[in-house]
Formats: sequence, structure tokens, C-alpha cells
Amino acid sequence: MAIRVNPNIDAGTHAKITTGTYENKFGIAFEEIEGAYARASKLKNLRLRGLQMHIGSQLTETKPFEMAVRKVVPLAAKLSAKYSFEFFSIGGGIGIVYDPALESGPVEWWQSLRAKKIVTPASYAATVVPLLRPLNLRILVEPGRFIVGNAGSLITRVEFVKRTGRKNFVIVDAAMNDLIRPAFYDSYHQIVPLTRKSGSLVSSDVVGPICESGDYFCKDRPLEKVREGDYLALLSAGAYGSVMASNYNTRSIAAEALVNGKKAALVRQRQPLEEIWKTERIPAWL
Amino acid sequence: MAIRVNPNIDAGTHAKITTGTYENKFGIAFEEIEGAYARASKLKNLRLRGLQMHIGSQLTETKPFEMAVRKVVPLAAKLSAKYSFEFFSIGGGIGIVYDPALESGPVEWWQSLRAKKIVTPASYAATVVPLLRPLNLRILVEPGRFIVGNAGSLITRVEFVKRTGRKNFVIVDAAMNDLIRPAFYDSYHQIVPLTRKSGSLVSSDVVGPICESGDYFCKDRPLEKVREGDYLALLSAGAYGSVMASNYNTRSIAAEALVNGKKAALVRQRQPLEEIWKTERIPAWL
Repeated sequence: MAIRVNPNIDAGTHAKITTGTYENKFGIAFEEIEGAYARASKLKNLRLRGLQMHIGSQLTETKPFEMAVRKVVPLAAKLSAKYSFEFFSIGGGIGIVYDPALESGPVEWWQSLRAKKIVTPASYAATVVPLLRPLNLRILVEPGRFIVGNAGSLITRVEFVKRTGRKNFVIVDAAMNDLIRPAFYDSYHQIVPLTRKSGSLVSSDVVGPICESGDYFCKDRPLEKVREGDYLALLSAGAYGSVMASNYNTRSIAAEALVNGKKAALVRQRQPLEEIWKTERIPAWL
Repeated sequence: MAIRVNPNIDAGTHAKITTGTYENKFGIAFEEIEGAYARASKLKNLRLRGLQMHIGSQLTETKPFEMAVRKVVPLAAKLSAKYSFEFFSIGGGIGIVYDPALESGPVEWWQSLRAKKIVTPASYAATVVPLLRPLNLRILVEPGRFIVGNAGSLITRVEFVKRTGRKNFVIVDAAMNDLIRPAFYDSYHQIVPLTRKSGSLVSSDVVGPICESGDYFCKDRPLEKVREGDYLALLSAGAYGSVMASNYNTRSIAAEALVNGKKAALVRQRQPLEEIWKTERIPAWL
């Protein structure tokens, strides 16, 4: 087993995805780790194999990783010498670019990033490998979002374009139950028509059919002019998309297709509607 | 059919659940309703039966309903005379009390309500019935949350109590995938131990086991001192609870039990874990 250390690094992430400060529920405080390993080492059914850290999600610069690793590596070295570790896990958190204009993550965060370089596997490795090498341990990383985030798109059909005096609503058949990130994390997802359009852009709200105002994908965003029957792709929906999907408004979970060049396959069937209520029972006494 | 009018009343609700302003996707603007009915009346497969309105959710005072009804009733009367309506729907939105201290809904909203009276069926009816009676129409209401919201509780077991220098984390086996309201709407749910406790209160964060900081039910709330194995009830979870549940972190949808006095029955089976991935397929060419 490994114990997760809370390095107490403020990585500047969105409040809902910060993980590495003393205000968070995760890990064991940096100062308490040695005591925790001392106690764990006395439990005969546990084998101490390593140390894990995690400082937050969707980090798009290398500095917070560097700060945390510099702080945690000496502790890991000390514990490794004592307990013969096999690995050190640096955790996850490598951010992806949700917007080609570098508008990744919540507003407060990306505004400070505009002029900076976004993390890449190369810049990440160049930052942390020299710091980790002296440990002489197997290094584990947890780059889930980085691997699948930009690999997935949510494809949706425009049901109706509703122009009011003040707004241009593009009503699509996908909804917040399919992709909750915009409503939940104020996340940006790039939205593009499947068929390229020409002409001027229209400030649009792309919204779903669910009965609440949180059911939107973007607000007041310049968008190609689309009409009923057009298809849109919501990009970068490969992480925290379908795994957070719900049956809200009795909407079934969407189908998923895997595309590789010219090959395509259905890898997840659309949930049949009756699956939603099939486990419900009416008691005999009602 | 009925057309939904957007009365453009700012009911002061949380941004995610406001519905009745021109910034919202819902309904047809007040000024455009007559034109919409004129066009709809020419479509021979439609029968114009009424008018619907909706101004927002979780309204805990009668004033916004009164404002909206006063604005919409003259329009409804005019259209009813022209198209022989059968009904007028006043929509939903009747709020419930999530907290006995009247802390219902988002902070900005309930702070202004502390000194005020919370809406009841009686005060609601006393407000709107005299205004609606002259219409001489069947009146429809949509009080879903009001009926079921306070009727449901989420029961959860304390897995571990984690005391750090700064925080007292009560880690429970329910999570944001079971009840997303606290994380999604900043909603308040009263949390009480199933077995009454005595002694002093401890400022606590009640959190779930999901790997993100948004997975919490309350923060820094004075709570009875609990320990591993205790059960807690999250009250007022009957509306927007299970219907918004997801399989996030490969957690299956919770079972639901109906209790009536001393009678109890399982009305929804716990989702078997394998249901989550049973519709997934690996393509032959992979």
C-alpha cells in the first residue's frame, strides 16, 4: 500500500477540483506522514510499497508540480530508505487545452495563463524527471484526463434555433445530463458544426432541452450560424463526460462510438429508456 | 396544446434555476404571445387549450407569484376569450424549507428571507386564487418539489472521521453522484444522526468518497459528534436527488425504500454494479 501525502500546495485550481491544501479532504498532512508510516509499518497485513501525492486537477502549467515535487521528494527519499519503497506516485492533474485560445479551465485561472506556456508531456517530464531521478524509484503518473479528454466529442443535433429580442438560443438534443461540466465547473468546451459553415458568427447560447437554466453548454459565444437538423460537436468531452452522465429528466445515457481513421464501432449502446425504471417496484400495500 | 409565456419577472432565484427572464431559454416573451397564438391557431392539427407560465424554482415567498400572475392574467383572459381555453397553468416553483432556520436555497436568497414568512399552500392559494378566479378556467399547478422534496432522505453510513489540524471531516458512503445538489446548487440539506446524540457540536465537513473536492454535503457545519458506523440522514432529498444521480466513480445508483408509518418496502433496487458497463463493447478490430 501507499499513503497519500497532502503537500499543501495551492495550485490555483477551481474550488471544486483543488485537492492539495489543508482545506481539502484528501491525503494526510505533510507533517503527519512520517507518523502515519511508522504506525502502518507495525500492521503485519500491510506492505508499504510507496508514497502518493496529488495537488489538483486541470493544471496547465508546470510550476505547481515543481513546487510540490520539490517539497515531497526529500520526504519520499527518507521514507523509501526506511521502508524500501518500490514506487513514488506523482498523482494526476496534467491539464488539457479545452480552447485553442488557451481558455482552459475556470476564468480566474486561464486569464493568468494567457501569456504562459501550457504544459505538455515534454515540458512536464523536463520539469519533474530531474527532481525525481535521485529517488531511484518506479514513478507512477495518473494522467487520465490528459489521455482521453481531447479524444472525445459529444455530437448533438440542433433541434431548434430560437431567436428572442435579446438572445439567440441554439437548442440541441444533448443536455446537462450528458455533459455536466459547463454547468458544474463553468467549463469551456469548444463547439463546432460538423459541417463547416461560412458567413458571420452569431452570439449564441447553446442549450439543452432540460427544464432548468443550468442546462447550457455555452452562453453569449460567437458561433457559426446553424439551423434545425445541423449537427454540432462539443470538443474535449472525453474526460468527465459520460462518466458523470445521469438519467435526469428521464433521459437515457447516450451511445458511444469509437472512431479510428475510417473505422468506427459502437462501444457503448444507448441505454434503453425502460432500464431507467425497470428496478422500481410498487409495494403490495400501496 | 398550450404555449408557455415568459413573464419576465425576476424572482430572485439562484442563477441555475431562474426561468422567467429574457435571459432564459424558456417560454415565449410576453410581448410575442398573442402573435404566437395567432399563428398556432391556423395550424389545423393543434388545439389551443390554454396558457402556461413559469417564473423559477424554489420560491419561498408569495410575492413573485403575485407579480407574475397579475401581469399574465389579463393576457390569459384575452386569449381565453378568443380561443376558448380550458386551462391556465401557473407552473411550479413553490419552495420548500430545507432548513428549519429558514436557510432555504442559496445564501443570497435566504438571507433576505430570514425575517419573512415562507410560502405555504394556504398562503400561496390566498395570494393567487383571488387573482385567478375571474379567468373561470381550470387551474393547473406543478408543485413537484413541494410534494416530494421534504418526503425523502438520503441515509448514509459514516465510514471514517478524519481530524486534521484544521478540519473535522466526516467521510460517508454516500457521495455527490447520489445527491449533487450541495455541490451543484450550493444547496443546504439538514444532516442529522439517525440515533440522537448528546454532547457538544463539532464544526464538520461531511464529505463523500469521490475523488474531487466538490464531493461534499456540508462544510464547517456544527454537527453532532459521530463516529465510524453511525448513520446520518440528509433531509429534504426527495426532489432532485435520485433523478440527478449518476454512475460517477463507477458507483451504482442507490436503492430506495418507501416508508409509511411502520410499513416499509424496497421501491427501487440498488443498481447492480455490472449494469454500469454491460452495454460496453470492444470492437473486433481493436
